[in-house]
Amino acid sequence: MIKKIEQSPLYKIVNPKSIAFLGASNSFAAMGTSCFASLAERGYEGELYPVHPSQEIVQGIKAYKNVADLPCTPDLAVMVLPTRIVCKAMEECGKKGIKHAIIVTAGFKEIGGDGVALEKELVGIALKYGIRFIGPNCIGVTNPHHKLNTTFLSDNSEPGFIGLASQSGSFVTQMTNYLSRMSLGFSTAFSIGNGASIDLVDCLQYLGACPHTKVITMYVEGIDRGREFMETARAIVPDKPIVALYVGGSETGKKACFSHTGTMAGPDMLYDGMFRQCGVIRATSLVEMFDFAWTLGNLPEPKGRNVVIQTHSGGPGATAADACGRMGLELPPLSNKTLDKLADLVPGTASINNPVDLTFSKNPKDFFQKIPGALLEDPNIHMLLTYYLMPLQTMQRPLVQMGLSVDEAQKGAYKMVEHACDAVAGLVDKYKKPLVGFTFRGMEEPFPAGLAKRGVPIYPSPERAVAALAVLARYSELKAAITKKP
Amino acid sequence: MIKKIEQSPLYKIVNPKSIAFLGASNSFAAMGTSCFASLAERGYEGELYPVHPSQEIVQGIKAYKNVADLPCTPDLAVMVLPTRIVCKAMEECGKKGIKHAIIVTAGFKEIGGDGVALEKELVGIALKYGIRFIGPNCIGVTNPHHKLNTTFLSDNSEPGFIGLASQSGSFVTQMTNYLSRMSLGFSTAFSIGNGASIDLVDCLQYLGACPHTKVITMYVEGIDRGREFMETARAIVPDKPIVALYVGGSETGKKACFSHTGTMAGPDMLYDGMFRQCGVIRATSLVEMFDFAWTLGNLPEPKGRNVVIQTHSGGPGATAADACGRMGLELPPLSNKTLDKLADLVPGTASINNPVDLTFSKNPKDFFQKIPGALLEDPNIHMLLTYYLMPLQTMQRPLVQMGLSVDEAQKGAYKMVEHACDAVAGLVDKYKKPLVGFTFRGMEEPFPAGLAKRGVPIYPSPERAVAALAVLARYSELKAAITKKP
Repeated sequence: MIKKIEQSPLYKIVNPKSIAFLGASNSFAAMGTSCFASLAERGYEGELYPVHPSQEIVQGIKAYKNVADLPCTPDLAVMVLPTRIVCKAMEECGKKGIKHAIIVTAGFKEIGGDGVALEKELVGIALKYGIRFIGPNCIGVTNPHHKLNTTFLSDNSEPGFIGLASQSGSFVTQMTNYLSRMSLGFSTAFSIGNGASIDLVDCLQYLGACPHTKVITMYVEGIDRGREFMETARAIVPDKPIVALYVGGSETGKKACFSHTGTMAGPDMLYDGMFRQCGVIRATSLVEMFDFAWTLGNLPEPKGRNVVIQTHSGGPGATAADACGRMGLELPPLSNKTLDKLADLVPGTASINNPVDLTFSKNPKDFFQKIPGALLEDPNIHMLLTYYLMPLQTMQRPLVQMGLSVDEAQKGAYKMVEHACDAVAGLVDKYKKPLVGFTFRGMEEPFPAGLAKRGVPIYPSPERAVAALAVLARYSELKAAITKKP
Repeated sequence: MIKKIEQSPLYKIVNPKSIAFLGASNSFAAMGTSCFASLAERGYEGELYPVHPSQEIVQGIKAYKNVADLPCTPDLAVMVLPTRIVCKAMEECGKKGIKHAIIVTAGFKEIGGDGVALEKELVGIALKYGIRFIGPNCIGVTNPHHKLNTTFLSDNSEPGFIGLASQSGSFVTQMTNYLSRMSLGFSTAFSIGNGASIDLVDCLQYLGACPHTKVITMYVEGIDRGREFMETARAIVPDKPIVALYVGGSETGKKACFSHTGTMAGPDMLYDGMFRQCGVIRATSLVEMFDFAWTLGNLPEPKGRNVVIQTHSGGPGATAADACGRMGLELPPLSNKTLDKLADLVPGTASINNPVDLTFSKNPKDFFQKIPGALLEDPNIHMLLTYYLMPLQTMQRPLVQMGLSVDEAQKGAYKMVEHACDAVAGLVDKYKKPLVGFTFRGMEEPFPAGLAKRGVPIYPSPERAVAALAVLARYSELKAAITKKP
């Protein structure tokens, strides 16, 4: 394990002060050109040195004919070159004293045959010069906290707290839009490609030491250094959770992984056991992995597995209750003291078992503040799960009926939404207990978006919300198990 | 089983030519008022007769003091009244000759004690006058094809092909927005509440005969008439699929169902067995139920379980492949003839195993038409699953680089999206094989929305897409099993 983040070979790769870029040009069809454009679009603030055999200016920036000509030794070289010239370029970088590289170019181990030999040659050159590199056959890295994006897709997402170590480049570049919809973002994301020099273990060590990273996520097709992986994970898990998606466990998954990154995947059981022993939480899908990160990175640890469900509709309450039972969460009865507090707040038609089904809400302040407050005060309750509806139109209709113009009613409804979101977020701060919501409305609507913005996870189904609550309890248990052992 | 839809007691309830409305007023806080307003908002075209003891005009429509005063005998009475006067109102409706009612009012069997006796009394009155009714403790019905919505939430969603029989009102009223985002909608949806007169079996028979309904969905907390349910389902399944969500199987689910609708739920195994025997597909969540409806209602039947995956990114391809393996779908190799056809269409970096990973797309026409066309022509391939990215921005960037203005580039990109959607939808028509997509982009974006509009399902994760493809194969098998037996 590294003691300081600067010790990681990845430190200069994702926090470079200067970059030599090999493979960008003024021809907009080329991939390298897109990667280079992404750096500018993200607002990278360090020095950029495009290297091009003939063009003197690349995308408005002075270019150099050779790496040898560069006026300084950059922290990092990025290569998006034809396969046949990568080794030669690596040699030149080595001679220049460059110690870190990202090799996007494909056509190595993953194609078999000659590609395997070529990758060996590449690794040999790197070793000779003491270069550590990501790739080949990767998509690069993104570190929004450093305004760095070397991938070919532009990315202006907000910096976040999710670290990602991925054997797929797509999940680095193609998930930022997805995460943004939940007000989530990457702290740093690595696409390791074939992992010839830097592998998942290196990424794990970096992310473990990274101050911006609250949750580590991993997309895994196969782990080569099993022992080191487990030691590293065990060292990290007491401080931050690790969630991994492993897709090589099925026969079809195994074949697909092999043709993707040349990885030899192992059976599910092996990985299940390995993950369990080192406290890594296994997600069954990418969606679930980020669902888990949402609660793990935002919410306090629960003291146990007792949940209370607050709903104003029976069906959503019953589906949530069913999901709790299936995922090992308990729905204990409420204390008499809590029942007394609720008595004044709920309508006569309400059912104050657990789920607490209000049937309808007498007033918003009770629904968003007093009722959940009373539930969270109950010492036997560890977590709160709430069903939310809150379409703007239902708030606007009565305001219009009360005589407001449509415009005024809309403004009024927006204000009500903001107040409601503040109230809910305030509950987490006040009671230090996890609270999540679920809704079937779209994340583009102001209420779900407002909760997400304030760090309150709100899921598009009860099952996903319950799974994300259950993982909080699971993480506490995994941590306890690890710290107990010698 | 009914032979004609008009024989169903529900026919006049969801296709009424005239409605007596008891419980609407000009006081906008009342629930009945909202329900009445919803009828007007939906554009109901029949006669409306509000009944109110003192107000002469209700929401602009002439009101009557008593049911007896009505100028005709309406097809349907809707009651949103205080519990204590429901029986009296039912008696008056009976005397007037009204034969169908919706009773929204709660406070009957579901609260136990006196409520149980009150519900018996209500049923007795209905029997005396030959009245069939939905409820009590329900939210009403919606039949967009008849411009009918009796629920308190407004609903202007497009008519669709999904029939819903639900023991939860929320799932009738609170899912239209959800379904609209997928260009889906209800044919007719019933909230049966306590099911005192009309139950799930009646709904099933209606929806089985309903010409607008292509898929029947059910939210089930417990089935009372087990034998009739199974007979009805077996008669319907050869013509249209039935998908059911049952939430009473866990201990927590069972308790929640009881306090919601007073239903005695049974163990999971019992329901699993029952559903299997009569060909009903069990969904594990509401989201899954509508996911299934999306493919079942839009796509042709597959001839088997062989899938080909088309992707331009390895990670999404590998997760989809893993999901296929876990859900019993096969990824066979492609025929030599297919490989020959692909050779000219894919870039050199592509992997043409199954998944077919293009790594990038040489041109849109190949990606959206020629490549999937070649894959669907392969006689050994039964279904196609495609990973889509298609953010507008990636199409706009090269257009701007080519010299177009931002405005022109945006228009150009929108046009490309429309063409791509047309091409994909054309594949289903041409090859008569199921085709679904998955993406991590939002459904509000033009490409996913455009596919959905054309009836091509596109899911927000590979797992959901694969499950929805697998259910097509499962439905064929269930149908075959049922029609084989005597």
